[in-house]
Amino acid sequence: MDFANYFPIWDKLNPEQQERILSVTDLRTVKAGTVLHDGSPECLGMLLVKSGQLRAYILSEEGREVTICRFFEMDICLFSASCVMPNMQFDIFIEAEKDTTLWVIPACLYQNLMDESLPVSNYSHNLITNHFSDVMWLMEQIMWKSFDKRLAAFLLEESNLEGTNALKITHEKIANHMGTAREVVTRMLRYFQSEGMVRLTRGTVIIENRKALKNLQG
Amino acid sequence: MDFANYFPIWDKLNPEQQERILSVTDLRTVKAGTVLHDGSPECLGMLLVKSGQLRAYILSEEGREVTICRFFEMDICLFSASCVMPNMQFDIFIEAEKDTTLWVIPACLYQNLMDESLPVSNYSHNLITNHFSDVMWLMEQIMWKSFDKRLAAFLLEESNLEGTNALKITHEKIANHMGTAREVVTRMLRYFQSEGMVRLTRGTVIIENRKALKNLQG
Repeated sequence: MDFANYFPIWDKLNPEQQERILSVTDLRTVKAGTVLHDGSPECLGMLLVKSGQLRAYILSEEGREVTICRFFEMDICLFSASCVMPNMQFDIFIEAEKDTTLWVIPACLYQNLMDESLPVSNYSHNLITNHFSDVMWLMEQIMWKSFDKRLAAFLLEESNLEGTNALKITHEKIANHMGTAREVVTRMLRYFQSEGMVRLTRGTVIIENRKALKNLQG
Repeated sequence: MDFANYFPIWDKLNPEQQERILSVTDLRTVKAGTVLHDGSPECLGMLLVKSGQLRAYILSEEGREVTICRFFEMDICLFSASCVMPNMQFDIFIEAEKDTTLWVIPACLYQNLMDESLPVSNYSHNLITNHFSDVMWLMEQIMWKSFDKRLAAFLLEESNLEGTNALKITHEKIANHMGTAREVVTRMLRYFQSEGMVRLTRGTVIIENRKALKNLQG
């Protein structure tokens, strides 16, 4: 088990604490599309990604989604450990975007470590601050940036993540990331197409003019 | 100095730490309208409100504001201590909404305490989580709630805070709280007036039908 290589503050734990973590933490593999955490108060625990990709999102009563942040190799997600964050009164969903291998550290163990270990407590503080910063960034985008800029930024991010200009993604899925309706995405993509920035085929958005998208995203 | 009665984890500090805090923390009184923190990387420190009212807000490049959260008696604000939150990459402004008396705990001292005291570290973790929860709530409002519901909720909150149905507040000021343009606020308030929910006079919004506003806010 190479958990020790992935967990950033492993060396700051004492042998007894390390032992305790290894005895209860398990490595899981989940298929793309699996919902790991469904916003229920049930506390899954802290997630540490070994490989793959997760996304955290919120969901409106009408079923509209918006992606809050994404987690990649070596990233740690605390949103699934709501009991470690006692005052969090919002529901977060976590889904595997790709086939993902991850460690699940039970929340009760993590809570105990936080209560007894200053490095763990300070580390968690930093993690929360990171998550917080992501959310503030997103809120500023939503508040101040027009939808065309946000969509351009999203397409470029996807393209970087997938390492291709031909994005296999539906308009529905893009809408779910961005917290808007499918029609709004379709309309804007058609506008992008008319401007020669993308080309649309069934189930695919092909980036044709990267530079124009970059200029647009601002 | 009754700082000890206001600082929630005072009893969890050792005498030397208590002494250190008292020696560098000062009590300030600021007038309503004073901007305590202007989004610059300069690190003011942690604020503990003795009396009065603060608000934290973000600002767009075009000068539009949106209120993130408010702080009242005994509340602690960490947004002004960006150096304690190393990964925060957004600019927060803090303004006194009323004449306010507050303690300022220098950031460097607070950082030292966090590094050496588990109770301080855990307490900070909880504070950040609280701030975070406020922001998530706000984002959900902005994403999913229509503006009429948000405005109804804002008027009721103001009315509760001020203990009156006659709110002395300009449309401009409401717009600044809600991250929108003054015209949008004016239009919606006129609609509320036509529905008999409020009455508008110069510089004042009078709540006429509390129940209708409550129903609207949902």
